[in-house]
Amino acid sequence: MDEMATPGTPCDRGLALFTDLYELTMLQAYLEEGMHAEAVFTLFVRRLPKRRNYLLACGLDTVLGQLEGLRFTRADLDYLAGLGPFKEGFLRWLEDFRFTGDVHAVPEGTPVFANEPILEVIAPLPEAQLIETLVMNQIHLQTVIASKAARLVEAAGGRPVVDFGARRMHGLDAAIKGARAFHIAGVAATSNVLAGRLYGLPVRGTMAHSYIQAHVDEAAAFAAFARLYPETVLLVDTYDTIAGIDRVIALAKEMGEAFHVSAVRLDSGDLASLAREGRARLDEAGLSRVGIFASGGLNEDVIAELLLRGAPIDGFGVGTSMGISSDVPDLDIAYKLAEYAGEGRLKLSSGKPILPGRKQVFRELRDGLYAGDVIGRLGEDLPGEPLLVKVMEHGQRLDSHLRDLKCLRDHAADCLKRLPADIRAITPADAPYPVQISAALADHQRSVREAITGRHLVRGSKTDG
Amino acid sequence: MDEMATPGTPCDRGLALFTDLYELTMLQAYLEEGMHAEAVFTLFVRRLPKRRNYLLACGLDTVLGQLEGLRFTRADLDYLAGLGPFKEGFLRWLEDFRFTGDVHAVPEGTPVFANEPILEVIAPLPEAQLIETLVMNQIHLQTVIASKAARLVEAAGGRPVVDFGARRMHGLDAAIKGARAFHIAGVAATSNVLAGRLYGLPVRGTMAHSYIQAHVDEAAAFAAFARLYPETVLLVDTYDTIAGIDRVIALAKEMGEAFHVSAVRLDSGDLASLAREGRARLDEAGLSRVGIFASGGLNEDVIAELLLRGAPIDGFGVGTSMGISSDVPDLDIAYKLAEYAGEGRLKLSSGKPILPGRKQVFRELRDGLYAGDVIGRLGEDLPGEPLLVKVMEHGQRLDSHLRDLKCLRDHAADCLKRLPADIRAITPADAPYPVQISAALADHQRSVREAITGRHLVRGSKTDG
Repeated sequence: MDEMATPGTPCDRGLALFTDLYELTMLQAYLEEGMHAEAVFTLFVRRLPKRRNYLLACGLDTVLGQLEGLRFTRADLDYLAGLGPFKEGFLRWLEDFRFTGDVHAVPEGTPVFANEPILEVIAPLPEAQLIETLVMNQIHLQTVIASKAARLVEAAGGRPVVDFGARRMHGLDAAIKGARAFHIAGVAATSNVLAGRLYGLPVRGTMAHSYIQAHVDEAAAFAAFARLYPETVLLVDTYDTIAGIDRVIALAKEMGEAFHVSAVRLDSGDLASLAREGRARLDEAGLSRVGIFASGGLNEDVIAELLLRGAPIDGFGVGTSMGISSDVPDLDIAYKLAEYAGEGRLKLSSGKPILPGRKQVFRELRDGLYAGDVIGRLGEDLPGEPLLVKVMEHGQRLDSHLRDLKCLRDHAADCLKRLPADIRAITPADAPYPVQISAALADHQRSVREAITGRHLVRGSKTDG
Repeated sequence: MDEMATPGTPCDRGLALFTDLYELTMLQAYLEEGMHAEAVFTLFVRRLPKRRNYLLACGLDTVLGQLEGLRFTRADLDYLAGLGPFKEGFLRWLEDFRFTGDVHAVPEGTPVFANEPILEVIAPLPEAQLIETLVMNQIHLQTVIASKAARLVEAAGGRPVVDFGARRMHGLDAAIKGARAFHIAGVAATSNVLAGRLYGLPVRGTMAHSYIQAHVDEAAAFAAFARLYPETVLLVDTYDTIAGIDRVIALAKEMGEAFHVSAVRLDSGDLASLAREGRARLDEAGLSRVGIFASGGLNEDVIAELLLRGAPIDGFGVGTSMGISSDVPDLDIAYKLAEYAGEGRLKLSSGKPILPGRKQVFRELRDGLYAGDVIGRLGEDLPGEPLLVKVMEHGQRLDSHLRDLKCLRDHAADCLKRLPADIRAITPADAPYPVQISAALADHQRSVREAITGRHLVRGSKTDG
């Protein structure tokens, strides 16, 4: 049902049940208790992993599209009816469910830090609660991926990075939306054709070992492919890399003017020395226009090391490490109730602070670089650029919401340029990027905590929030 | 188009373009060169990660369903036409594309080791090539997840493990199919309602901190929830864990006979000592039937440590570490051409051996335990149980293919019981599980390598395949 309202990827349909069971039991309880006042939930990352000096927020447009289209189907409702705990009246409420809330968020491609709201949902409590699982899942995935990709792009120092991740990324949704996140983070192209179609991304490909293997010999494979796709990239490591490069040189002599192969691809072995030897042989043969493209187990550290060693590599194909963000595949992301019925809310659980109420982040620019952030209360007038923008009102995306992928990519590039060099670097920063809490927000947090503590007569002092 | 043939999850439609661009360029080349003889591709994992003594194969049924339904839509073809390299004749060929090949595979839930075929695809070369990206993506995801989950189940020693991973798993497809993989690996239930509906999995849930926070105080929240859902689990760590448990005890006194709360949930702090103190207080209050359920940053090591310390915990909710397999989020999985037109094929790239031809794995049982495997050529008659079964013929699933989730879960449990204890353990095994290559396969590999080396006059001796 409601195909029109659903966004463009195959995974984004029929998602109302993509939620944890407790969201639905809580919803029914909220409704029975008459608790449908306005709630504010904040999505943020509690702390940065050691290998991330910043995160690149991503996934907002996906989420807004999903919220616009969120509907319970008849099959969903029949299933819930059979589970037991759900009453007829609640199922009728679900049948009419529409997300009617507001969303404030930082634009995709914006660097964010620990405890900074990536988005805030302001909606009747049951609506804001229901969407928790979906919103977290989608923003988490895309922020993990974009944050990793920005490191690869940084390490490659202007040389193109191409996404080869589809085969090992975690499922279809990750591979498709990940390709979009890569693009925002500055990745040059993807090998994922479906992502290319869905998002209009540049697609790129070379050839696989199987193509070479299926031919009687490597020379025959090179010749056939180069004739059909003149500007192709030839994979040279199936049997012996340097012999493979020599075969490319032989093919160039044989084809003469018709030879337009753009690069050779190295996919195994000591890439730096193979690239150097390959470059020398190609240059000697007058083929300086044939580039060297590397792939195979690359990550930002390997790329940085290759370039440090002066490896003459012109571009990188990166799969698993970028696609899964293998070193940091998950973030301590949270979606927490910060306000209900006009009152700030928090938890006192050990190690898991919440900043209560509606918030804004102010980012100061000094000499063209970001100098520090202050997380304040919404409505405060503090120095710096406010990062959170109202992007959805009454369940509808607003024009203020940046959607165009080119704009998002440009925005990310601009922001990344303004990060201090040690924060943008792939090595750990000397000191974390400075993020403070405004006096007004600290006051508010204190008074909310006192109110709760007063109500609960908490025994010890286990709180750190 | 063709909705009937597509399987049941929202992500599994319109997947023909879920492929790397080079598969399509190679396909067109194969067709132009008349290369549509039969090919054999083998899917396997090159080596086991340090923290995995075995892998649990998973994802086969998903893949077979996708292969049966794989069709290019008009939108796909229009998109490809616009890309440039694809000719009219090739697009017409894609329009009629059906996967017509055979698949041999180990049943889902079977433990596998390095270099053992998880599946082999036998099909005309272009068909077997096209599906590479999709098959790898789906088997990789589900095998990663099932392999991790089996470790959690092992660590929990019979106590139920519940999947709380949906919010941080990598996207929708991972969370949905991951829940299925968890189930096969022995996880008791999932919080993911959509996965529950799609696969008929047991669903379970408790309550969130936000529910507590939204109420005027914790006692009011507990009372409301326990009245609506008598056998619920109450979350006690929002403000002060022990005070929370005392409030549950107070509620039991207040509700009398109507009190049927099944457990309290601890989600932060020192779980072992909180569980002990909580258990003592509950027992003292005559509430020994109220269990203790733990969650929050759990993984197999933490669970083993908690149980080693004698923590009285009755069940575990595990999210991120299991859902992303955070310690090993990816496997060195490969899908490699092993035979074409009746001839064995391999690569000589450094560090990436291929076993040529069609294969079978023979697993020997001794005293009720698996004693070792031999990877042989298909058709060899070696001792032990042959693991690979023909599950698809001419593009159609066969009855020999184990699909029923209960059967798959039982199969996995049976297999896991037969693993030697040190292999099944979550700590590194004393020695790897023994896997050998049959004499016939080793001979075949040698002769294929000699044929290739002869054709290529390879320069050095960089080969290790």
